[in-house]
Amino acid sequence: MPAEVDKPAKMNLTLIVLDEPTPAFGAVFTTNAFPGAPVLVGRERLREPTLGAVVVNNKVSNVCAPGGVEASERLCAEVARGLGLSATQVLPCSTGVIGWRLPVDAMVGAVPAAVASLDARSVMPAAEGIMTTDLYPKVRRASVGQGSIVGIAKGAGMLEPNLATMLVYLLTDVDVPRDALRATLRSVAARTFGCISVDSDTSTSDTVALLSSRQVPCPSLEQFESALERVCADLAEDLVRNGEGVHHVMRVRVHGAPDEAVARGIGKSVVNSPLFQCAVNGNDPNVGRLVMAIGKYVGAHHPGMDLSRCTLRMGGRVILQQGTFRLDHEAERALVAHMKEAELYASVAPADGLTFRPPVTWPPHERAVELDVDLGLGSAACTVLGSDRSHEYISENADYRS
Amino acid sequence: MPAEVDKPAKMNLTLIVLDEPTPAFGAVFTTNAFPGAPVLVGRERLREPTLGAVVVNNKVSNVCAPGGVEASERLCAEVARGLGLSATQVLPCSTGVIGWRLPVDAMVGAVPAAVASLDARSVMPAAEGIMTTDLYPKVRRASVGQGSIVGIAKGAGMLEPNLATMLVYLLTDVDVPRDALRATLRSVAARTFGCISVDSDTSTSDTVALLSSRQVPCPSLEQFESALERVCADLAEDLVRNGEGVHHVMRVRVHGAPDEAVARGIGKSVVNSPLFQCAVNGNDPNVGRLVMAIGKYVGAHHPGMDLSRCTLRMGGRVILQQGTFRLDHEAERALVAHMKEAELYASVAPADGLTFRPPVTWPPHERAVELDVDLGLGSAACTVLGSDRSHEYISENADYRS
Repeated sequence: MPAEVDKPAKMNLTLIVLDEPTPAFGAVFTTNAFPGAPVLVGRERLREPTLGAVVVNNKVSNVCAPGGVEASERLCAEVARGLGLSATQVLPCSTGVIGWRLPVDAMVGAVPAAVASLDARSVMPAAEGIMTTDLYPKVRRASVGQGSIVGIAKGAGMLEPNLATMLVYLLTDVDVPRDALRATLRSVAARTFGCISVDSDTSTSDTVALLSSRQVPCPSLEQFESALERVCADLAEDLVRNGEGVHHVMRVRVHGAPDEAVARGIGKSVVNSPLFQCAVNGNDPNVGRLVMAIGKYVGAHHPGMDLSRCTLRMGGRVILQQGTFRLDHEAERALVAHMKEAELYASVAPADGLTFRPPVTWPPHERAVELDVDLGLGSAACTVLGSDRSHEYISENADYRS
Repeated sequence: MPAEVDKPAKMNLTLIVLDEPTPAFGAVFTTNAFPGAPVLVGRERLREPTLGAVVVNNKVSNVCAPGGVEASERLCAEVARGLGLSATQVLPCSTGVIGWRLPVDAMVGAVPAAVASLDARSVMPAAEGIMTTDLYPKVRRASVGQGSIVGIAKGAGMLEPNLATMLVYLLTDVDVPRDALRATLRSVAARTFGCISVDSDTSTSDTVALLSSRQVPCPSLEQFESALERVCADLAEDLVRNGEGVHHVMRVRVHGAPDEAVARGIGKSVVNSPLFQCAVNGNDPNVGRLVMAIGKYVGAHHPGMDLSRCTLRMGGRVILQQGTFRLDHEAERALVAHMKEAELYASVAPADGLTFRPPVTWPPHERAVELDVDLGLGSAACTVLGSDRSHEYISENADYRS
């Protein structure tokens, strides 16, 4: 593949290894109908009695490439040999450019060094190793009884999980049986990673895996689920805040909905509207585009739904009630102030006149543009996280093969 | 509304008037569930025995504004008075910013001058008058027997019709009865305006209207439908080519599909993928993103569908066959050349470092990035038109309330 030759950017090979293989593991994968070879292999791994390690590479995602499954299996076999496991105890994950071939010979050659550098003290090297266009590593933790859950995540673009995508590894010492662990993971992933979008594009590769070392008794499944949700919700917000070219995180709380699917659909329509994303980017309170995005979803999917009781708020302020805008000079000034306060950075004119780069490498705050949609129709609710659309996103994705 | 005061951009009031009111008229409207007041009024007009005129304003779309329907009706009444019609014989249309109030007093004051300047010789003044962010007026024509169909269109952003949106006025002297005329309009609009997208956002306001003066006999309904489809398909492509910030038009032909809805869904998913749009903008043959966009739609809507017989072509060249990429150095060079040939212009570094403006005001050619998706599953097909995503789109929509 030409670009592999032209752009020999550094690939990281990352290992996550348990002290002992565990039966208590689970994973959810992308819903994309062109899944990568590692996803095909990973789905098979779910039938195995135990899992002992995960091997991750960035830069090349191994999707629809000739010999892709064989390449993933060969890498698993080499990692297993180095760790004293069987190949079926190793979960492979690849992220990066779609279409290129995995440089499997070089990767196999790097396995002994990866095994030798395993570090029991910190997940930070792994959180850094799996990064692609991420600006910073993402690590979150929560306690459960005497134990804890630690999670790491990578992902900045091609980020709209359906149930789950991106690369997320959740490690716990809390002992939860396989079936309960998998059911909890599915439901928590849907409520967290399933409710974010940076660009509405669903990756072909990505994976959320949860592995338990079973060292600590589980106080209750409710406590475990609640801690897992906290870790996943925090990582999901980290992913959006670090999304490609993100200047503003948007948090859309939709409530008063007839069911949760409607609430999520409306939230996604708002955060994925290119026109509303641009308005937010420019700190322009063009709330007409917010109304458009809600009406577009409802008109396309639930044309009979009555929106006359819908109330919209931005930054806590009512902007539409009973089908009519409530706007004036003072309201517009307050909305501009709210958006400016949520801005992570302002664009800097690029040196070459064309290629914008974010001037920050770490989010300066955790604020968001707060949007509230009350449909006045029921009791279901959903909160969706998304982002604006900026020159930096265009530069990242038009001029650079990431 | 503050922005009405701060940005008193010129509003045009445009009249389209028949020599006599006609029973042979029809219209299709946006599916957005927050329709503008003129759409609410327009739907009522479809029940009237005859229509004699259309009144159109740009700049303010009269959506969810206090007293919106009353404002539209008052304008219709004033136009009717000037033309010797009744108010119910006038179709109102407004396009522009959502949320602002129609400056109806000023508009009523302008009606006499609009009536006095009616021009029977050309539709060009109307095609120019209805423009908002359009770079140029759009006029198309086709013959039917001894008669013809002439169409004008405006629309550059918030442009993904579901059945029909934007403002399009189709005028014919061919005599087609009302029911047949409306059925033909619905089906043609779905196949033309229903198969384009600039930004996946569905306008709250827009309208496609067809009016016949019934002066010339219709040779056959098939000939009429075919001519109408030619005019509408040409206008639809004009809308995309003039879309906000468009550097490349993409034409996605999906065939071998089990049904037309699947074909259209896949085509829309490709043209609406932010990541693929950016790759096309940068003349980067990142066809992995094309595969991602197809798999995202199929995985979300038809998870059981078999994609193993899918063949993808770009610029006539096979890039994926039997689930595997067919790429090499020479193929990538050819794809880059195809994309560069379809480019309308390259971005010019902006004077202020941040605000990009298109350096052209008229499309230099009619070429497109040609994509062909053969699913190998059936005989249904659909061609979808869309565009890339550029710095100019961000500048137009982030920094400027259009």
